[in-house]
Amino acid sequence: MADLVTVGDTSLRLSPEGNERLETATDVRMRTTGTASNVAVAAGRMGTDALWLSKLPDSALGRRVLAELHEHGIETDVASSEGGRQGLTFYESAPQPRETVEIDDRIESTAGTMTPGELAMDEVQDAASVFAAGSTMALSSTAAETVQAILRAGGSGSDFAAFDLDYRPSMWSAEKARATVTNVFDAVEVLFASEDDVRAVLDRNGQPREMAHTIAAEWDFHMVVITRSEYGALAYHDGVIHDSDAIETEAVDETGQHEAFIGAFLARLLEGADTDDALDAGVAMAALTRTIPGPLTTVGRAEVDALLADGDQTTF
Amino acid sequence: MADLVTVGDTSLRLSPEGNERLETATDVRMRTTGTASNVAVAAGRMGTDALWLSKLPDSALGRRVLAELHEHGIETDVASSEGGRQGLTFYESAPQPRETVEIDDRIESTAGTMTPGELAMDEVQDAASVFAAGSTMALSSTAAETVQAILRAGGSGSDFAAFDLDYRPSMWSAEKARATVTNVFDAVEVLFASEDDVRAVLDRNGQPREMAHTIAAEWDFHMVVITRSEYGALAYHDGVIHDSDAIETEAVDETGQHEAFIGAFLARLLEGADTDDALDAGVAMAALTRTIPGPLTTVGRAEVDALLADGDQTTF
Amino acid sequence: MADLVTVGDTSLRLSPEGNERLETATDVRMRTTGTASNVAVAAGRMGTDALWLSKLPDSALGRRVLAELHEHGIETDVASSEGGRQGLTFYESAPQPRETVEIDDRIESTAGTMTPGELAMDEVQDAASVFAAGSTMALSSTAAETVQAILRAGGSGSDFAAFDLDYRPSMWSAEKARATVTNVFDAVEVLFASEDDVRAVLDRNGQPREMAHTIAAEWDFHMVVITRSEYGALAYHDGVIHDSDAIETEAVDETGQHEAFIGAFLARLLEGADTDDALDAGVAMAALTRTIPGPLTTVGRAEVDALLADGDQTTF
Amino acid sequence: MADLVTVGDTSLRLSPEGNERLETATDVRMRTTGTASNVAVAAGRMGTDALWLSKLPDSALGRRVLAELHEHGIETDVASSEGGRQGLTFYESAPQPRETVEIDDRIESTAGTMTPGELAMDEVQDAASVFAAGSTMALSSTAAETVQAILRAGGSGSDFAAFDLDYRPSMWSAEKARATVTNVFDAVEVLFASEDDVRAVLDRNGQPREMAHTIAAEWDFHMVVITRSEYGALAYHDGVIHDSDAIETEAVDETGQHEAFIGAFLARLLEGADTDDALDAGVAMAALTRTIPGPLTTVGRAEVDALLADGDQTTF
Amino acid sequence: MADLVTVGDTSLRLSPEGNERLETATDVRMRTTGTASNVAVAAGRMGTDALWLSKLPDSALGRRVLAELHEHGIETDVASSEGGRQGLTFYESAPQPRETVEIDDRIESTAGTMTPGELAMDEVQDAASVFAAGSTMALSSTAAETVQAILRAGGSGSDFAAFDLDYRPSMWSAEKARATVTNVFDAVEVLFASEDDVRAVLDRNGQPREMAHTIAAEWDFHMVVITRSEYGALAYHDGVIHDSDAIETEAVDETGQHEAFIGAFLARLLEGADTDDALDAGVAMAALTRTIPGPLTTVGRAEVDALLADGDQTTF
Amino acid sequence: MADLVTVGDTSLRLSPEGNERLETATDVRMRTTGTASNVAVAAGRMGTDALWLSKLPDSALGRRVLAELHEHGIETDVASSEGGRQGLTFYESAPQPRETVEIDDRIESTAGTMTPGELAMDEVQDAASVFAAGSTMALSSTAAETVQAILRAGGSGSDFAAFDLDYRPSMWSAEKARATVTNVFDAVEVLFASEDDVRAVLDRNGQPREMAHTIAAEWDFHMVVITRSEYGALAYHDGVIHDSDAIETEAVDETGQHEAFIGAFLARLLEGADTDDALDAGVAMAALTRTIPGPLTTVGRAEVDALLADGDQTTF
Repeated sequence: MADLVTVGDTSLRLSPEGNERLETATDVRMRTTGTASNVAVAAGRMGTDALWLSKLPDSALGRRVLAELHEHGIETDVASSEGGRQGLTFYESAPQPRETVEIDDRIESTAGTMTPGELAMDEVQDAASVFAAGSTMALSSTAAETVQAILRAGGSGSDFAAFDLDYRPSMWSAEKARATVTNVFDAVEVLFASEDDVRAVLDRNGQPREMAHTIAAEWDFHMVVITRSEYGALAYHDGVIHDSDAIETEAVDETGQHEAFIGAFLARLLEGADTDDALDAGVAMAALTRTIPGPLTTVGRAEVDALLADGDQTTF
Repeated sequence: MADLVTVGDTSLRLSPEGNERLETATDVRMRTTGTASNVAVAAGRMGTDALWLSKLPDSALGRRVLAELHEHGIETDVASSEGGRQGLTFYESAPQPRETVEIDDRIESTAGTMTPGELAMDEVQDAASVFAAGSTMALSSTAAETVQAILRAGGSGSDFAAFDLDYRPSMWSAEKARATVTNVFDAVEVLFASEDDVRAVLDRNGQPREMAHTIAAEWDFHMVVITRSEYGALAYHDGVIHDSDAIETEAVDETGQHEAFIGAFLARLLEGADTDDALDAGVAMAALTRTIPGPLTTVGRAEVDALLADGDQTTF
Repeated sequence: MADLVTVGDTSLRLSPEGNERLETATDVRMRTTGTASNVAVAAGRMGTDALWLSKLPDSALGRRVLAELHEHGIETDVASSEGGRQGLTFYESAPQPRETVEIDDRIESTAGTMTPGELAMDEVQDAASVFAAGSTMALSSTAAETVQAILRAGGSGSDFAAFDLDYRPSMWSAEKARATVTNVFDAVEVLFASEDDVRAVLDRNGQPREMAHTIAAEWDFHMVVITRSEYGALAYHDGVIHDSDAIETEAVDETGQHEAFIGAFLARLLEGADTDDALDAGVAMAALTRTIPGPLTTVGRAEVDALLADGDQTTF
Repeated sequence: MADLVTVGDTSLRLSPEGNERLETATDVRMRTTGTASNVAVAAGRMGTDALWLSKLPDSALGRRVLAELHEHGIETDVASSEGGRQGLTFYESAPQPRETVEIDDRIESTAGTMTPGELAMDEVQDAASVFAAGSTMALSSTAAETVQAILRAGGSGSDFAAFDLDYRPSMWSAEKARATVTNVFDAVEVLFASEDDVRAVLDRNGQPREMAHTIAAEWDFHMVVITRSEYGALAYHDGVIHDSDAIETEAVDETGQHEAFIGAFLARLLEGADTDDALDAGVAMAALTRTIPGPLTTVGRAEVDALLADGDQTTF
Repeated sequence: MADLVTVGDTSLRLSPEGNERLETATDVRMRTTGTASNVAVAAGRMGTDALWLSKLPDSALGRRVLAELHEHGIETDVASSEGGRQGLTFYESAPQPRETVEIDDRIESTAGTMTPGELAMDEVQDAASVFAAGSTMALSSTAAETVQAILRAGGSGSDFAAFDLDYRPSMWSAEKARATVTNVFDAVEVLFASEDDVRAVLDRNGQPREMAHTIAAEWDFHMVVITRSEYGALAYHDGVIHDSDAIETEAVDETGQHEAFIGAFLARLLEGADTDDALDAGVAMAALTRTIPGPLTTVGRAEVDALLADGDQTTF
Repeated sequence: MADLVTVGDTSLRLSPEGNERLETATDVRMRTTGTASNVAVAAGRMGTDALWLSKLPDSALGRRVLAELHEHGIETDVASSEGGRQGLTFYESAPQPRETVEIDDRIESTAGTMTPGELAMDEVQDAASVFAAGSTMALSSTAAETVQAILRAGGSGSDFAAFDLDYRPSMWSAEKARATVTNVFDAVEVLFASEDDVRAVLDRNGQPREMAHTIAAEWDFHMVVITRSEYGALAYHDGVIHDSDAIETEAVDETGQHEAFIGAFLARLLEGADTDDALDAGVAMAALTRTIPGPLTTVGRAEVDALLADGDQTTF
């Protein structure tokens, strides 16, 4: 019986190293990334018993995804398809002012065909919390319905259901995203979103504090958490705004930091920590994750705790 | 005005180096491969003025394919789609008795949407010869019709139209392949096929010599060329069977040798060489190509000629 | 409740790639290897529910070992020490006639301090079978006693206890090895040994068939399995010798094949296969494992079955 | 009929990666670099139909240079020598305060023997513009005469002839350079120079604005363009100074930025853009090129346009 | 007869490249590092005739250490043990705020068994100076006694004996370190220490200037040199404090800079330079060494001199 | 006072790894190779006190050569030029039937300017033996005269002068080579040559035994040693032919084996071994060297001795 069950699609990411470009690269590094699995890994590193549910093709590529997630220490329970596609992402990171290139190649991927009947719904019902992301709902209507079923099932017996807006413009329009994700908001207690996603999908403007207030009010969320990349993060809870400054980092890879934040935040929440402590843990985990190549974090609980204990030296 | 125009789809191939497996590899090498472009490159290395026609997505991946083909010295004339998929192949080579893994990931790729109207049909009409392959016809009915249109257009004014059976079991059944490819046989003067493909698609048994005779008789081909990997190749022409023994090699990469054979064979035919000389050039090019990593050959005309001149030492 | 519990130490192996030498190499590849964990991985790939017990330092290196074993799909239950050493092996493979260099650097490693009290003895007692190796007994008298306790505990409720002689001359003398390992033979039902180890440790000569007979007779084993590298393997069972020829391979890495054999053999035995089938599975798994870099196998059940089904083509 | 014909020598550059030193490096990356070909590539990426003329040895190294230029999308028309040397450059980049090491190894290279008779002078005469650099004149008196002949031939029928001072102290003295390059100034309409080269070769001091004025006055140039690395670039044209600030970048490789500037500037000029727009395009192309490893740019027109459209955020 | 004899243990350092972590790295770079050998290499690059004495296992790993030191140009005279351990260090560098991981794995290494009788004491006695470090004394009491013997032997006939506190908390406590190293202070003329080591081992507080004064006074050192990383270094000599500001660098690898400082400082002292010049050379060498991957410097005398000549531009 | 002084030029060799071609490779490995230094390294590994004399440019590339030779354990005494060229070799190894590509780029290299006055002639005169090769005489008439002076100087006081024909068709014609090298034969006691070089330069045919007899007779050599690659080697000495069969190897890199043979042969001769033992040592060293990447051997004396002791198993 897991503390946290996350559900969603996961891609193989193919990216050149050393600032090379996809157009001229001869080699690409293969890494696993997906919002739900990244969150599970981060929570697992903080000590949470985390389980990831999904559907993968029964192929060398599907096994590749599973192997890397197991390497990072989480449990998985995965449906399998014969002959489907593994979702892919081509990724070219870029120093300023060159722009990062991200090619989402998830058309007709196996994950888009997952139905509640194929997933371990008993694990969802027994878990203390469930998590899913908007980007999985973008895959297909089947996937969107499955996310909805998961959040409702999780809602019934669990402490809470958590959801990340996770808007990908290359997958659907903001209008389509809004219509689809707001549909499940009644089943969600804790909403995560980056400041940009709030603007794009929920069409809110103004300061993040206001955003959090009005969103919580409109959809009656228990908690609304807004991440602000280099400005830290803030959380609305019980009518109060809590916030935590970002920590200065020499960033090596920006990917995965948002999910690392969510994983650590949820891990602390599940331990009974208060909102301020959960925010601090999330921000510290995100900062450390930015120093590590690849979207899957290998930051450990001890490192997060040490950074927080050592805070006044390194924060700004 | 090119001597040889080839038309077909081309993939990015992603493969681990050094006998690593896809399941555990951290890095994969990215190479370009496609029957029609491989043939154009091989013919170009032999001195033929070769042009490749196709359709690619207007993305870093589409540009990647073009850049590698230009690096290998051929001319291209390529239609472009906004937002389509680049066809991919995941490839894991394996020492005996482990089996090679090849995952064709060309679902809904841009190349499958190419129509005659998007291609430089004037180049096809003016060319001394055209070439296409059965695997491109497997992509979609649109692609199959385009191949048909190309072969017929090429047939009108050119010396000859050439076609490679190129059967991929992962893309369609033998029955479907047979029904589709035999449909264009009336427009083809020179048919290439591996011995295995003849058995699978054309349902012929017996010795390769017989195969060549009965195929030529049934569809009235000018020339039928059967490659036999480690046993060399043979050609039916004007009622006579010509053959050429294979050349002993320390193989480094088996991929691309069949196309290298075709490219060199066509190059010599276009120069007016007789069938025996064309066979010898094809076999020598194939042998040398097996010593080079990757499916695109970098063997030069001088190397082929030197190997043939030096034949009695190294053949067996 | 696992089908197979294996107990033993596992090293980080550091080895140069591409036939480079330790003396001049600038980079070394880091891989995990240990007889008990290699066996668990191989059995797991065959479909057995395998669990590995051991003790590791609570350090980045200890976590490195765990991560790689999880990546390869097995369950682990591991005691942890603060500040101990991770066992290491430096390994330089060599083409003939150069000799392979192996530097065992396991002095005072954490694994040598493991006691039964630190291990999940309930898992041992509940398991259908247990496995340990002689090399773990060479680490320290503590480790030797732990192995003995495990085999006896496993013996009580399990189907069988299995043991591999696994003699490492760099760790102890043949005399010391013999005195120590024969001490646990009464708790062992299935004995594995390479032909060389039988000669060195058990001081037997003659043909492998005789060896198996006399060993089974002297220590009253249920089964004695002797691996003969390029000559396959044979097994004594119920007074009868069964054997299986080796399968021709283009070997890429000889390490791990012996353990892969054991894992597949045990997996089939646990499924109720007869001795001949278990031998065939072991030999096929060993052959395929030799085509893969590194000592941990990634060969799957389907590949073993396909090779066995396809046998008359590739065996010799 | 090309829009831009560039003529000059091109080297293979051998450089260690990752801040390693030539003295201890085991591997070096091989890249193609030359002022004239770098300019052609940058102009080609902006959409100009660019052609590079030169002379290369008929060897694997000469073919290597050609292949990389074709990969980057330009047309070439190259004379070939049997048995000559390919020019080489050993390059060690260095973080501050360590100094970059550049070993010019172009003694007796084939490019130094090129004569007008070996080059496609008809292409030069038909082109809308020609470009050459002072460093090619440093190779040999033959090369210097060829550059002169090209600029004069280009001058006759073309829109303009462009020239980059491109002073290399390791190849000749400032005095020798001045005497040689000023000799061709009467055939040049557009002069490019870095601020440092102006000081060293043309012996001008003072502010860049004054430099541009007095140089234009003395040699009657139509346009004088001075690049100022981190301070941007300025251009004298028709009695007026135009300038463009540099764009802040996280530089990955400083090499090739000057030529990328020239290529983009010329491309825009050939499209009929005014001086300010050409300067902006040059500065944007240079900034983006600094984010890419290697001297040959892979920045596309769309990236330059996007950066210019997005200017007020990223300029400083 | 060497100018400088250094004595001490040297490790093989195993570290992942590119900010990867030990937990997930597949490859590690192998480099040689040890305070005494690093100092000898740095002094040797400055032109000093430097000799390193130590004891290494007679194995591929021991030969690996020797080969890399010879590659860096120093002479060695090394005792050899059959079958001992080579000392190792696992090192994971980390961008801020992640913390560097260093696992000292020198338990029972061969270097800890070296006795004066095994070393070339005649070389020590004849040398103009000797150098040893506190970290070698931490290996074993045998090693501590050997260091003591060396410093005393060197003291008798040489210009001076030099010693670096070089405190490693993972090897011993500050108390044990203090008791052991102060024991040899009467044989030492020149003491080196980082500011942090002075605080930890000698229990001094206050400003570095005071520290130097009180330490010199208490133990009657001829010279006390305190390095202050980004704040440069200062030296007490004859009642006067000399200091030198640090030089701004784009640091690539922080390791080895302290020893590079010492080597250059000693080299200049042995040439008869005054304290200020020796400090400047040390600081310049340290700055340049930070731009080079790995702890062994490849900075040459000419580079140090050029940086010092060019000082007002680059210092801050 | 060295046992063996070798004199000659040494190149940096640049070669792609993994069967890649120079035309498409992005990275090349940099290694040091030269007949005289390769011989010195091989002799040094056998225990001979070997010294290499040469002239190198005072540049990062010249220091690169020195560093790698020191890494391999030999002493050097090298003249230095300001600003000269480092000799280079581009090398592309090829599996059969592709032909190896070797581009000798030693035009105007510094080594070709070395005069006896620049070299340590006292070391030559004091040495027990000297060695030089024909390829160094091909560099320039200055180099040829220097080799002559060395062999004569060595001849006066030494045990013997040794010379390897070492014919490089890319550097000079067989006629020129013959005229030049036979000029120094009167100063040579021990002549080495491959069977091919004897045919090409000395214009001898027939069996190697006859060759050795007639060559020894014509020029009055003390010893004539002919290497026959896969057929071993034979030596004429005092009217008798001695021979040694080759040892079967899995060859990784064929380069350097001939020089490794010479180094080991000379090392044993200098120890007083008889001709048969020297031949055996040479053949064993050559066999082991073929298993190691690169032309510089790292095979140790112990490995040679073990292979010879173990001979009947591995020879054929």
